[in-house]
Order: sequence, then C-alpha cells, then structure tokens
Amino acid sequence: MIPLSSASRRMTSSAIREILKVTQQPHVISFAGGLPAPELFPLQEIQAATDSILSTQGREALQYSTTEGHLPLREWIADRAGTTADRVQITSGSQQGLDLVSRVLLDPGDVVLVEQPTYLGALQAMSPYGAQFVEIASDADGIIPEALAEQLERTPATLLYTIPSFQNPTGRTLPLERRRALLEVTRRHGVTVLEDGPYNELRFRGEHLPTLFELAREQADSLDDVHVVHLGSFSKVLAPGLRDAWVQAPRHVIDRLVLAKQGADLHSPTLNQMIVHALVEDVLPQQLERLRETYGHRAGVMASALRRHFPADAQASEPDGGMFCWIELGSGAEEPRTTAGRAIDTGALLDTAVRAGVAYVPGQPFFAHGDGRSTLRLSFTSSTDEQIETGIRTLGEVFAAAGDDAR
Amino acid sequence: MIPLSSASRRMTSSAIREILKVTQQPHVISFAGGLPAPELFPLQEIQAATDSILSTQGREALQYSTTEGHLPLREWIADRAGTTADRVQITSGSQQGLDLVSRVLLDPGDVVLVEQPTYLGALQAMSPYGAQFVEIASDADGIIPEALAEQLERTPATLLYTIPSFQNPTGRTLPLERRRALLEVTRRHGVTVLEDGPYNELRFRGEHLPTLFELAREQADSLDDVHVVHLGSFSKVLAPGLRDAWVQAPRHVIDRLVLAKQGADLHSPTLNQMIVHALVEDVLPQQLERLRETYGHRAGVMASALRRHFPADAQASEPDGGMFCWIELGSGAEEPRTTAGRAIDTGALLDTAVRAGVAYVPGQPFFAHGDGRSTLRLSFTSSTDEQIETGIRTLGEVFAAAGDDAR
Repeated sequence: MIPLSSASRRMTSSAIREILKVTQQPHVISFAGGLPAPELFPLQEIQAATDSILSTQGREALQYSTTEGHLPLREWIADRAGTTADRVQITSGSQQGLDLVSRVLLDPGDVVLVEQPTYLGALQAMSPYGAQFVEIASDADGIIPEALAEQLERTPATLLYTIPSFQNPTGRTLPLERRRALLEVTRRHGVTVLEDGPYNELRFRGEHLPTLFELAREQADSLDDVHVVHLGSFSKVLAPGLRDAWVQAPRHVIDRLVLAKQGADLHSPTLNQMIVHALVEDVLPQQLERLRETYGHRAGVMASALRRHFPADAQASEPDGGMFCWIELGSGAEEPRTTAGRAIDTGALLDTAVRAGVAYVPGQPFFAHGDGRSTLRLSFTSSTDEQIETGIRTLGEVFAAAGDDAR
Repeated sequence: MIPLSSASRRMTSSAIREILKVTQQPHVISFAGGLPAPELFPLQEIQAATDSILSTQGREALQYSTTEGHLPLREWIADRAGTTADRVQITSGSQQGLDLVSRVLLDPGDVVLVEQPTYLGALQAMSPYGAQFVEIASDADGIIPEALAEQLERTPATLLYTIPSFQNPTGRTLPLERRRALLEVTRRHGVTVLEDGPYNELRFRGEHLPTLFELAREQADSLDDVHVVHLGSFSKVLAPGLRDAWVQAPRHVIDRLVLAKQGADLHSPTLNQMIVHALVEDVLPQQLERLRETYGHRAGVMASALRRHFPADAQASEPDGGMFCWIELGSGAEEPRTTAGRAIDTGALLDTAVRAGVAYVPGQPFFAHGDGRSTLRLSFTSSTDEQIETGIRTLGEVFAAAGDDAR
C-alpha cells in the first residue's frame, strides 16, 4: 500500500510502479498503468503453445541458453526488420534494452537528447549512467527538427532517445518528413538514434509509417553503418508478463550488448522466448487486428468523454494508435505557471482523484527537468466503455473543482 | 561457432558462455557448462503447473506485475529463511542479483574481497561498477579467516563475496567454525557479506550447515541489522531456463534494489514466478532427493575415474555437494610456474581437449588476478557414468601428453 499523500506531494521516478500498486484495488478505475487489455491476451493460444513446447522441447526450454537469445526468434525478428539475426539481441522487456544500451553507449556526462515530454522509464534507465538530458522542443507532431538542429549546432550529443510512433506519454507520431529530417541531422552530427518502438504495430487510424531504423537502413552503405539502435517488444502486442523484447543494432553495438547482458542476467528465459516464437506466425497477426480494433474504439470513447466532461480549456492529444492520450489542463504543458490562478498541479490532485475512484499518471515525471505540472497521461487500453465514461466524468469534476478553487 | 584457437590463447571473462556454444555439439562430452542434468527436470510437473496457472490465473500471469516479485513466492522464500517477504527481491537468475547488488552497494574503487579462486560470473558482474578485487587466501576448507582478518586490518573493504557451500569453481565448503569467524571479522570491520548460495540444497554427503545469513540473523538485533546479503536461486534445483532467483537483504538494501530493478528490467516474468511457486511445496522436496542421489553418484564416478586416469600429481577437490570438482595439475593452483617444466596451461590445452571430444573450463578466469594457469573446473552433473569414464580418460591422456611434452 502506497502512502498516497507523500506520493502526490512529490512524484518520483518510480511513480508509475507505485501507482500500479494502488490501482490493483478493484474499485479503482485506472487510466494509469499503460497495461495492455488483459481480456485480449491470447490465453488459449499461449497455453497450447506452452504445452507443445514442454512436450517436445522441454529440456531445451528449461535449460541454460545463449546470451544472444533463441535463434529462431531472432531470425524471425531480423527477417521482418530487414536485418540479420546476429544484429538482434533478445532482452527482458524493452526496459532492459534501455539499460543495456545505456551501459554500452553512455559515459558519465554524455548528453542525451529527449522529447519534451519523454518516457519516464527511459529517464530512469539512463540516469544511473550519468546521462545529461537535454529536451528538444516538441509539438503535436513530435520533435521539431529545426530545434534539434539548433541544439546540435550549440552542443554535441551522444544519443537521441525517441518514440516516434504513438509516443509514451503523449500519443504523438512523428510524420515521415520529420523522420527523414531527424535522421539527416543526427547522422550529420554523429548522434546515435535510440528508437523505442513498442507501439509501432498498434496503429488504428491513418497510414503505416516506416520506422527510423528502416529509413536509415535504406540509406546506409551496410547494416553496420545504420546509426539507429531500435528497441522492439512483444509486451504490448502479445503479453508483457512474458518479458520478451529485443534490440536491433549494428554488430559492434550488439557485441558489447551481449557482454553487458552476460554480466546483467546471463540470458532471458528460454521457455518464454520459445512461447513467443510459436505465436509470431499465426497468432500475432490476428492478435494485432483485435488490439487495433479494440484500442481504436476505446480511444474514441475516451476522446468523446473528454470533450464532454473536461474543462473547456483542457487540450487532449488525438493519437492514431498506441495506448495513451495526453492532457494539458489550463495553460498547457510548457508554462504551467504563467497564468497563476489556473495552474492545476496534477501531482497534488492524484490523491483526490484516487479517493474519488480514478487513477492517472501526473505528467511531471515525464519531463526531464520537471515541467508539466498541469499535464497528465491517460491510458485508454484496459478499461471498458462504461469505465472510461465514468472515470473521465469523475476526473473532469475533480479538475473543474480544483480549477474553481484556484481562481 | 567459437574460434577455438583464439579462445584458448587468452581466456576472456566470457569464456564460459562461449564454451557453452561449442559444447552444444552432440559429439562433445562436456564437463564445462555447470548445467543441471536436463533428464531430471520435473518436466511433467512443470507442464501441469503451467497449464493450471494459465487456466485459472492466466491474465495475472501474463500482465505487468510489481518489481518486487510475486508475493506468494516471496513469502515462501522468506518463511524458509527466517526473514520477511518485504526483505526479499525476486531477480532474473542470481546473475541479476549480483548485478543489482553491485549497482546499489559499490562505488568505483571499492574493495571487494573474493575467494581464491571465485565465481567468474561474479567478477564479470562487479567489474563494470569499478570493483577492486582482493583475493583472500583459501585452502580446501575455503576462505582462511586469519588471512581475512589480516587483510582487513591492512585495508578497508566494502564487500566480501563468497560461495560458502560447494563453491563454484572448487566445490569446497566452509566449515561451521570458519563461518562464525568470517561473520565476526566482517561485522567488526563493517564489511557487508554477499553470500551466493545456489548449491546450498545440493548436499549429497555430510551434515547440513546453516547459511551465513541464518547465522548472522541469529546474532543480529533485528532483520535490518543483518550484515549478510544472501543470493538464492531455483536454477540449480528446479530449472535454470525459468530464470527465477532472489536476494534476501535488510530493508534499506531491498528498497534500493527495487529502484535499481525498475530501471534494469521493470520486473521478472510473472508466469515463471508462478510456475516456481506452484512447485515449491510438493515437487521441490522430491526433486532435491533425486538431484542429491544422482549428483552424489556421478561425483563418485568422476572421483574414481580421476584417480585412475589423471596424472599422479594432479589434485582433485572432493566436494560434498553441488556440481563441481576442481583440479590442480602438477604444481597446483597458487604457483603454477614454480616448477617450470611441469606447468601445464589448461587454457592453451582446451583446443586439444575439445578436438579429442571433451570440454572443461580452464581455471584461470576464476582468479581475479589471472593465476591458476594449471587448474580446471569439471562439472559432474550432466554426464552419464559412461561419458564421465570416457571423458576423464581422454582428458587424462591429453594432460599426460602435455606433461610429457613439457618435461
């Protein structure tokens, strides 16, 4: 049980994990967790696959294995991304990808460019390695390439960390032209792009875009000349509890990642990798269809509820995929303090909201330097239509009351 | 496929993992890997447990979960060790325990005391955090307490890393009196003991000894005053491919481990923790009986073969449990170069041995400062009687020929 008052007083980087604990209480409607819809897990298919693996390859599934990961799974990943299996390292969730890439690419004091806001788990993974975060101005279409170029002309950087599709926390997607511009600028300045792509396949509206990795690969002389390290994951498209994800990178990065992973946890569970591999050909495509349909529907229900129940000056992002909607209350994200009477602190209000039966994630922890006091992240993936309607109405009341108090 | 000639020229810290790759070839008799006997895996029981979990708790098993780990499993671990669930952190293998403990307890330049020789995976885990290793003189009974005391009077240290029972690589066990002495000296000097105990339950001869954690707990004023951090694992007693292990520590260490694990990989796979928890009550006790019987038998077969086939001046450890036997060829471990004509380099001979169809692990990587050129580690757990007889005879011939050449 989390002491809510202290949590709301000052959101720490472990905010999301702590909130997850609170929202395990069944009476709380949670838009906080970023949890895939559990009722859509392909349970029977996973059960059948596991049974078959343990019957026919049980000893292999339960024995020590190679650090790089289960070769057939790496081959499947490589084929789909246009790379090779020896340029794929399996990780225990993308969080481990973030940790291992930070280990091998960052030295203390290195500048890491991030979106404004960015995924707080990435800040948490990179901080211990001494990363100095510099936020790049971003709008509804993600990173502004001109702002990136200006920053790089001022100060060199080691890494640019970005979630170009259906970003966490904003739900924003970087358009094709900006992708090309971002790649051009970073290549020119010798910056490695760390592309986090867990939501890539969860588009429910609009046209599919190539990943930064794919775009960079088309232009590079060889696969080892690509300046993008790509993180992929099965957590959001199959089941996060299996902890199966991967890193695609040039060989010289993979070689160092393998050594880092040997020291970190030897290898990821063999059984879990075999389960995922058994599902990728036949189950995954159907599963993606179900997820896109359900998440698209729920995003629409939430957008409608937000329009009806939130204060008129609140701005909500309109994601074309993924799991998250981003809200800027009152004066917006960048300068929440400019109109003092309307600045609403979503961190301080979390306690009130949870007591009223609804959880969200305050936006501030997603900013590298602590802005965004009147922002919040809502996940639309794991709630029913009725829960979304009720939860958004309740939140609207909480924020309206806070706004009235502040006036 | 590993280039053997380069591997044998200079054994790196990734030696064991690379050798594992070679020894996946079916014609090689491998004493190298430290693999539990796969034919003893409780496959049917794991299959039944998994099926039941996915049928009744599937959504929970496949969803994101808390960083600390599956509570019922932590409660079971805590009960057995005489501690509490909030002083237990689940890890992905003990290798991750080594990594996370290093993260939270070590600063660059900190002195870490280690056995001579010690587990190379621990050296590999602690090195990136800037550990300065100091070897403590050890004999057939493990660390010599007087040597430890003398060292600590000369230089302060942060951590003592030790595997007191059936050590990897030597198979040695620290007697009760030395355990008490080690705890007394380290407590007096303010040194935290990192006890690695994956083989504790695999005793096939002699009387059970309490762990360092248990001894320290009896004397401490409270559970948070215990100066031992204990690493436990299900890898050697159930199945390593599940990657289920744990850390027991005082709350102030656990709190920091939880934050470190959040950044490192969020949490260990839920399904795997539930599988292990389903087995601990009924399956694990029977499984331990089977393992002790089989490993005791195989250790005996290997000891007999070593006496008949190895050079007369080779010394083999006589483990009372665990998985490993340690060999000092010719002049022994500490000073392999003193009688120059008889110094046999087991690293250089690995190539010859594998070509003759037998794999082992050269001893040198287990020494923090590169001694032990004429030592090797043999695992007796995953080979049949016939393979042990044939493999040891072949190795004996390889070493005898090398000894003759060297004269």
